[in-house]
Amino acid sequence: MEGDITARMGNLVIQIGVLLFAVRFFGFLAKKARISSVLGELIAGVVIGPYALGAIPLPGFPSGIFSLNSVSLAVTPELYGFSIVASVILLFASGLETDLALFLRYSLAGGVIGLGGVVASFLLGDVAGMMVFGCGIMDVRCLFLGIMSTATSVGITARILSDKKKMDSPEGVTILASAVFDDVLGIILLAVVMGIVAALSSEGGQVSIDGVKILLIAARAFGIWLVFTAAGLVFSKKIANFLKIFKHSYDFSICALGIALLLGGFFEKQGLAMIIGAYITGLSLSATDIAAIIQERIHGLYKFFVPLFFAVMGMMVNMRELMSKNVLAFGAFYTLLAVMAKVVGCGLPALGFGFNLKGALRIGCGMIPRGEVALIIAGIGLTAGILDEQMFGVVILMTLVTTLFAPPLISASLSINGKGTKKEARSTDNVAFTWDFGSDEIADLVIDIFLKDLRSEGFYVQMMNISDGISQARKDGISLSITETESVVKIETSAEDSGFVKNAMYEVLIRLGNLVQDLKENYVPEKINFFDQSEVSRTSSDILKLFAPDAVSVDLKGTTKEQILQEMVMLLANSGAVRNWETVLADVRERENIMSTGMQHGVAFPHGKSDAVTHTCVALGISRNGVDFDSLDGEKCKVFVMIVSPKKTSSPHMLLLSSMSYILRDEKNVEELLKCPDAKSLFEKMKEFAARKNNS
Amino acid sequence: MEGDITARMGNLVIQIGVLLFAVRFFGFLAKKARISSVLGELIAGVVIGPYALGAIPLPGFPSGIFSLNSVSLAVTPELYGFSIVASVILLFASGLETDLALFLRYSLAGGVIGLGGVVASFLLGDVAGMMVFGCGIMDVRCLFLGIMSTATSVGITARILSDKKKMDSPEGVTILASAVFDDVLGIILLAVVMGIVAALSSEGGQVSIDGVKILLIAARAFGIWLVFTAAGLVFSKKIANFLKIFKHSYDFSICALGIALLLGGFFEKQGLAMIIGAYITGLSLSATDIAAIIQERIHGLYKFFVPLFFAVMGMMVNMRELMSKNVLAFGAFYTLLAVMAKVVGCGLPALGFGFNLKGALRIGCGMIPRGEVALIIAGIGLTAGILDEQMFGVVILMTLVTTLFAPPLISASLSINGKGTKKEARSTDNVAFTWDFGSDEIADLVIDIFLKDLRSEGFYVQMMNISDGISQARKDGISLSITETESVVKIETSAEDSGFVKNAMYEVLIRLGNLVQDLKENYVPEKINFFDQSEVSRTSSDILKLFAPDAVSVDLKGTTKEQILQEMVMLLANSGAVRNWETVLADVRERENIMSTGMQHGVAFPHGKSDAVTHTCVALGISRNGVDFDSLDGEKCKVFVMIVSPKKTSSPHMLLLSSMSYILRDEKNVEELLKCPDAKSLFEKMKEFAARKNNS
Repeated sequence: MEGDITARMGNLVIQIGVLLFAVRFFGFLAKKARISSVLGELIAGVVIGPYALGAIPLPGFPSGIFSLNSVSLAVTPELYGFSIVASVILLFASGLETDLALFLRYSLAGGVIGLGGVVASFLLGDVAGMMVFGCGIMDVRCLFLGIMSTATSVGITARILSDKKKMDSPEGVTILASAVFDDVLGIILLAVVMGIVAALSSEGGQVSIDGVKILLIAARAFGIWLVFTAAGLVFSKKIANFLKIFKHSYDFSICALGIALLLGGFFEKQGLAMIIGAYITGLSLSATDIAAIIQERIHGLYKFFVPLFFAVMGMMVNMRELMSKNVLAFGAFYTLLAVMAKVVGCGLPALGFGFNLKGALRIGCGMIPRGEVALIIAGIGLTAGILDEQMFGVVILMTLVTTLFAPPLISASLSINGKGTKKEARSTDNVAFTWDFGSDEIADLVIDIFLKDLRSEGFYVQMMNISDGISQARKDGISLSITETESVVKIETSAEDSGFVKNAMYEVLIRLGNLVQDLKENYVPEKINFFDQSEVSRTSSDILKLFAPDAVSVDLKGTTKEQILQEMVMLLANSGAVRNWETVLADVRERENIMSTGMQHGVAFPHGKSDAVTHTCVALGISRNGVDFDSLDGEKCKVFVMIVSPKKTSSPHMLLLSSMSYILRDEKNVEELLKCPDAKSLFEKMKEFAARKNNS
Repeated sequence: MEGDITARMGNLVIQIGVLLFAVRFFGFLAKKARISSVLGELIAGVVIGPYALGAIPLPGFPSGIFSLNSVSLAVTPELYGFSIVASVILLFASGLETDLALFLRYSLAGGVIGLGGVVASFLLGDVAGMMVFGCGIMDVRCLFLGIMSTATSVGITARILSDKKKMDSPEGVTILASAVFDDVLGIILLAVVMGIVAALSSEGGQVSIDGVKILLIAARAFGIWLVFTAAGLVFSKKIANFLKIFKHSYDFSICALGIALLLGGFFEKQGLAMIIGAYITGLSLSATDIAAIIQERIHGLYKFFVPLFFAVMGMMVNMRELMSKNVLAFGAFYTLLAVMAKVVGCGLPALGFGFNLKGALRIGCGMIPRGEVALIIAGIGLTAGILDEQMFGVVILMTLVTTLFAPPLISASLSINGKGTKKEARSTDNVAFTWDFGSDEIADLVIDIFLKDLRSEGFYVQMMNISDGISQARKDGISLSITETESVVKIETSAEDSGFVKNAMYEVLIRLGNLVQDLKENYVPEKINFFDQSEVSRTSSDILKLFAPDAVSVDLKGTTKEQILQEMVMLLANSGAVRNWETVLADVRERENIMSTGMQHGVAFPHGKSDAVTHTCVALGISRNGVDFDSLDGEKCKVFVMIVSPKKTSSPHMLLLSSMSYILRDEKNVEELLKCPDAKSLFEKMKEFAARKNNS
């Protein structure tokens, strides 16, 4: 089989190519239907996978593009390898978003509520298995059913809260905090379960070892988790400093991922799950100063890999098995328990933290969606032979149903009138500020500085999901949610904190503005030696062609900057290139308003790019009396060269500008121009200068 | 074997994790030794591969971390899959850097010199095979030896040219232009050779088909290349528009890569090489407006994947075979021919394009290094069984030697005194401008706008290597090289074009400055309703703790802004938090210089962050006569609140600022403060305000 490696690799790249499009197409449909894009990607895998369209013969693919590899592994090991690396990236990024140390200070309620949900989910999931299989609580299948239902996928809830402006409500804040804990607890429980499963499997399966031994195994697994997590947190700064040896941010970010892969592999070798190591690595780095950089630098890898993972999981779904009566019935039962587990497991403790029934219901509903972690663990169970195709189908069903039906449930619970807290602690009137920064880069920059500032104010900043662009920052009673959509930044907070948001954003903008101002001031013409007389310059011979003899005047009448600009645009119109002079004037004025183009020796170069000209055109004008043009040297301007180029087609705009400024840097040339009695001689003189420079 | 898929995947992630570090470590050593990092990555693979360290048994790895998979494929198919995807990314990025249509207008010399080098390399490589194997010119091994020696890896040369400030010399410009053509021609030739090889192999190998048939096969392969390249270029805008359906830049960039994978797979199925499809995809998109975005968005993928490719190629090198006499002798012979082929094949035509012998030598030497493409084709040959391990070793040797020994050769040829051109066309005195923009993001932004401007001036912009940060822009006789290292941007050009560079950069900075200025002006205090009286705000109870009774004065003496700032800092020193008052003063002054903190009703909030305070501290002062503080409302300031926080530890700086500004927004409060007769009553009054707000 490996002899035909070239053909296998050909198939691999085609499979990945097809998947990259399919996940985006189905992700797009999912978004339109307002459901989670993860679900779309999963369904993409189901639809084009080996159990559905993927097996249809096509030219060049006698058994389909995604032919069934084997019963135990539906896709090829090569493709599966990509999905495994994807799962490591997913959990690494998830850990990276969790600043545990800082978090612990802020939310006891989150911890207890998260714990309630995890414990209830695990127990009910396990019990579901016991009832269906009629076996003991320590049966590996039951343990898997338990562990698979623990981890909430809070991204969906976060999006709904954000849409409904409830991220900063007491319920919203608590849900998001609980989800952080839920992740951590789920990972610990996974370590314990994997440890037990590994031990049980090596003993030949089922319940053959006694309670004490199981406790020891569980303790060992928990111990490994604890040692690495503690070491990671204690040495996080050292690890970060080690990574910084690789100076470039891409290099150290990829090496951080390298650690996640290595630790993942180590946990795998220990019989624990790979994702535990990946998560611990992320968690350890989350409190360091490079966390945000790593997140950004691996964003492209995340967007490439992670959807592949969900699609590959979808490919493992045997549609026929999924639709069998048994699977549907078991699935419905399992799903029901999974929903109840969170509603009760999280809702009950919530009542003890100042929430009333409404609030508890909202929190419970918010924790219902399951997602990525359930799928990863199900994949592990399937390939390890612990879960059969039917049970795998059951988990997929549970994931589908909880993510599909949680959103309307969450929305409904949020729409119930009335506060969710027992005492009226604070106003929950929220306000939203929206800024459009015009460009993605500027928006990124602003958000970067803003979040950095918040962290330095002692805020706990939680990024919801690397692909959502939603973040939340909390400190004591204050909470802000920050959403970035392309160039638009939206910050929501309660009305009483709006002053803080404005102040903070104002300082960010002032600093950003100053940064750029600094740059600009360091490179003003004088400083960059614009007028260094010794300097040589070239003038392209093409330049002469752009001069129109009609666009020249030795007798400009204007006495103000604005009048001169108007007159010059009118001259320009004589060159035949101007479609709409008012637009051209507006475009030139815009450039002039930023900074005057008046240079030295009474020369100014008003210029600009405009959609209202057909090609680059030049006008030349002289004002006998001179006009105040805010020149660099303060002198009145007498010689004006206006250059306007089209915005969209390529044109030698800057080349022309630098040639002209080179010619007129020479005071003698300026004097000669001023001596010209009429437009014709002025035009000839200018041509002469240009030609002379060109030949020199 | 596939049953143990979990263990295989555990090994895969460990292998990738190890590789990510190894390639960076060896890449780092290579840089220190001033040799190509590609070479370092290749050697990393050799050293840790299955033929060396990789086979050493370790705990948990009884046959080593990189145990030999099989004779025909040294690494596992899973890992090989990653390297294959890497090769697609590499060639896709390489195509993306080549704006063919624009390029063709500018360099006939580049085309002819590139062609000369490719033809000579192919023929001499093929002949080398004929002489060693004693077979015909159409033997598949000979064809492979020919094609593997064609493609120059110009990155190394570009770096040397850049170091020696020769990128813009006539030789430098011509080398870089030739390399563009060399890529294109190499790909065409590869298509033709792969077509012939596929046909020969299906006939059972060797020379069994006649000339006419071979011509037809070659024509078919060339035809496929031509059709797809032409279609790609003709429909490039349509493809780009299609991709833009995926609104987010990461999504369409990854989909563009998806096309490269699909077309690569298609070419593979046609018996041609995968990389041809990848290159064509890149080439097609190179002229579109999304080319630069795609390059940036896939940068992380490139940095993750591509070094893996070189390392995996290194892993396939059987050290023992490589060191055999046969391989060394054959390798030396093949390398010699490969060097001669470029020196003569490129040098000879150069003589016809205005270069003298020195110039021709420089150009020839600059084209010697071979690299990535040779390795990719060698990998194809090895896994397809066309090349044996010995021949694979020969090619590796050639790549190693040409990249190792070309740099000193190139340096030496550049160091020979005297011009390389027959006529003294222009001054080649080069000047370099260096700007440090303080942050990577700003530098990126500046470079982006600058290159965009150059393109719109009609320049041909060539990015040398995605990881080098070196670009070159050419138009007619002008050429600029732009190097970006972290936050530093260096632009080199000939002295006569320095005016143009300055002008162009000045306009970029003006526009960038304006962009940020716009942002700032739209959010000045008045506009964001700082002083909306109806607004509520919170004051944290912690704030009261930060007030020191000694840091209060009702009798500031200063009559200027500077004097007030000094007095306030002195007051602050009474709080015991100030380590060095001069530093604090400088830090506060810095913030004040950007924009006055004078607000309404005669209140000012001079503030800042400083390393010279131990914790956040506040001073409160009143000037009876008022001082001109450039306030927003123009009034003289009488009440001053100074807040200084440490730079590095987290502190409620903005929170305090917004609380204070909320309290003093109320004119009545300000009046009450002004009525206080002494420091003690002022302090008590302020505490009262803060407490009142806190309880409301």
